[in-house]
Amino acid sequence: MPLRVVELIAKKRAGGELAANELASLVDGYVRGNVPDYQMAAWLMAVCWRGMTLRETTDLTLLLARSGEMLDLGELGARAVDKHSTGGVGDKTTLAVAPLVAACGVPVAKLSGRGLGFTGGTLDKLESIPGFRVSLTTEEFVRQVERIGLAIASQSSDLAPADGKLYALRDVTATVESMPLIASSVMSKKLAAGAGSIVLDVKAGRGAFMKRVEDAISLAEVMVSIGRGAGRRVSAVISSMEQPLGNMVGNSLEVYEAVLTLRGEGPADFTMLVRALGERCLLTARAATSPEQAAEMLDRAWLSGDGLAKLAEMVEAQGGDPIYIEKPHLLPRTDLNVEVLAPRSGYLQAIDAEAVGLTAGALGAGRARKGDPVDPAVGMILGHKVGDWVEEGEPLLEIHARSHDDVQMAARRLLAAIEIGDEAVSPPVLIHAIID
Amino acid sequence: MPLRVVELIAKKRAGGELAANELASLVDGYVRGNVPDYQMAAWLMAVCWRGMTLRETTDLTLLLARSGEMLDLGELGARAVDKHSTGGVGDKTTLAVAPLVAACGVPVAKLSGRGLGFTGGTLDKLESIPGFRVSLTTEEFVRQVERIGLAIASQSSDLAPADGKLYALRDVTATVESMPLIASSVMSKKLAAGAGSIVLDVKAGRGAFMKRVEDAISLAEVMVSIGRGAGRRVSAVISSMEQPLGNMVGNSLEVYEAVLTLRGEGPADFTMLVRALGERCLLTARAATSPEQAAEMLDRAWLSGDGLAKLAEMVEAQGGDPIYIEKPHLLPRTDLNVEVLAPRSGYLQAIDAEAVGLTAGALGAGRARKGDPVDPAVGMILGHKVGDWVEEGEPLLEIHARSHDDVQMAARRLLAAIEIGDEAVSPPVLIHAIID
Repeated sequence: MPLRVVELIAKKRAGGELAANELASLVDGYVRGNVPDYQMAAWLMAVCWRGMTLRETTDLTLLLARSGEMLDLGELGARAVDKHSTGGVGDKTTLAVAPLVAACGVPVAKLSGRGLGFTGGTLDKLESIPGFRVSLTTEEFVRQVERIGLAIASQSSDLAPADGKLYALRDVTATVESMPLIASSVMSKKLAAGAGSIVLDVKAGRGAFMKRVEDAISLAEVMVSIGRGAGRRVSAVISSMEQPLGNMVGNSLEVYEAVLTLRGEGPADFTMLVRALGERCLLTARAATSPEQAAEMLDRAWLSGDGLAKLAEMVEAQGGDPIYIEKPHLLPRTDLNVEVLAPRSGYLQAIDAEAVGLTAGALGAGRARKGDPVDPAVGMILGHKVGDWVEEGEPLLEIHARSHDDVQMAARRLLAAIEIGDEAVSPPVLIHAIID
Repeated sequence: MPLRVVELIAKKRAGGELAANELASLVDGYVRGNVPDYQMAAWLMAVCWRGMTLRETTDLTLLLARSGEMLDLGELGARAVDKHSTGGVGDKTTLAVAPLVAACGVPVAKLSGRGLGFTGGTLDKLESIPGFRVSLTTEEFVRQVERIGLAIASQSSDLAPADGKLYALRDVTATVESMPLIASSVMSKKLAAGAGSIVLDVKAGRGAFMKRVEDAISLAEVMVSIGRGAGRRVSAVISSMEQPLGNMVGNSLEVYEAVLTLRGEGPADFTMLVRALGERCLLTARAATSPEQAAEMLDRAWLSGDGLAKLAEMVEAQGGDPIYIEKPHLLPRTDLNVEVLAPRSGYLQAIDAEAVGLTAGALGAGRARKGDPVDPAVGMILGHKVGDWVEEGEPLLEIHARSHDDVQMAARRLLAAIEIGDEAVSPPVLIHAIID
């Protein structure tokens, strides 16, 4: 007797756990068009209400991953590492971590989705390099990883198509925000993308999807468990997203800051996170056996310039001119760069990452709708981090915009997002936890 | 700016209250096809999760009621009474209450849905009378109420069509069980059906949708508030549905028992409920000003035979032969009527109404799917009520079925549903509460 979908919805509605074959009939039926959107939508909302057990979440992830092509990286697969961030403002970590890890001899094979967000994603940042091509065929992608040990490309719609279909439905039914649904969506694409090791950067704070550290840790634990249940090596870093990461926000500005950082001239917080994630990648992929060894390997690649050279190599392999890595001031910039001065003296109490991200989006750095273009050049450079002392009248930040109206809008919003006060504050904790 | 549906879903998901214009854009959009089923399904599940305030429930009810024709009973409207039961096993109350109240001079204008259930609904019971026609045009319906003061007919799909569309979606998305959705669905049809007074019989117990008395009282309170908010006179009786109502379950058997009861020969519990609901109708419609006066009016109609005559008059008006009311043993019956004897002596501890209902359904008295035919003749006669003493070997019940296999199936299930024990038990409370 075929499983009746309405009974599966009722079971979840009542707080029950769906068996593997029940989930399979739901997901397979949905992909084939036998389970209509309205039943899936009711089930999704019931999942938001009742949650899913780890077993259900893992089963769902595997069903989504196996709904399409499972990328075969050949003998590279077991050695390769993939790195994923749940997303934050100023998060250009992949641009520095991936080349450093590849320079240490660990292949990095990273497929990214476009995603929606205040600011562009990794693909948008890379595309601010003139000529850079993010859409590679599977063959091109695999061959590039084999040849230079590094590729970052857009995932094709053949990868976990059920997740794509489900995500589109979640987007219009207010069912995006659910820990097991987020975890299974992320991990289904990571599993389908084929790398044997996966390092997750799960953000917590006002600029992240997860506002509370405990929630970010729970999400990370679920994702790590899913990946391990599917036979992958997985670890996670839970990092802060209260204030923007680094100083620069915007597409070409973030490539610029990644290059500075690979040169050893980056901001302290971003440098620290790159280091933590890079070491995690080496440890997870078993290229290093101790944190000390991992740190040493990473430092060598960093100081020698091998990391920076690897980034240039990837840019060239994917159609960009490596001159932009050598001379990043050649990257697209706006003609209008306006400094905003500190309205008073004091300690920086807080920089609202979400507000900064939304302002960058309003300048044109992000997209409101799928397929919208993004402006590579706009953004802002923040001169200070939380805890810094600023003097009235000194430059507080710099806005890169297309019009004076935009500058005014951004200045107003950014001044509201930056709190200056008399009390001394310590710089916030950057890394909350590591799950290994 | 048009309201974005996904934001309305998100608001309910977060436990918020939707404003009147927000609910209107949702329901109107759904009726017009601008809000797709999948968004409505997600919202429905969010309502199951978070509930609705009384204000939201009332607004939703009015939107559903006004989505189609609002029946105009003309000058009758204000005087007419409508009676609704949330459904139970052996519930033939309308067949006795409606003619009694009409015989007291209060017009009864009742439109029923077909509904799904273990056993048939009021329309199915009436259709067990050969020739009886439940589908009347609006004009026929109104004219019959004007002429003889009584009509019971099937509601057309023009009545609260949004409720019909919504109910069909709830049915396939496991969102039927929700107090505000149930209340608004019932009341939308009552409001659209035009009667100025509405009496609700809300059942509680194992054979009812609401298992707990408190829940039934809450549901009744919500429905009463909705109706009063819409300017109607409404009251409710909360009655027990632990054991079947009366002794007979099945379509023609229930017509038979209603006739017996109108003759004054009915079982005590059913007679008591008919009396309570009849008095409620007279009081709610302001035809009586005190319970004593209502009781007196009702008794007069009952003892004089005017109630029974009114039933016969309605049967004739709707195409049936009144001979079946005069001589109800002529109603359809099965050839196979088998007595089941008590397997032991003792006090009847419980008769599981739900199990009895499901057994009647299995014999053919109900329908599993919309449009399925029901068998008018099958059913069972229970010889005893909870609290009765039974002697081993005496007839416990009688099964009316189409085959010996069916008899065996029903006997097995009914014996399991009837608990006999040594301890003396009091007859259960029949009427838990009255909301007036």
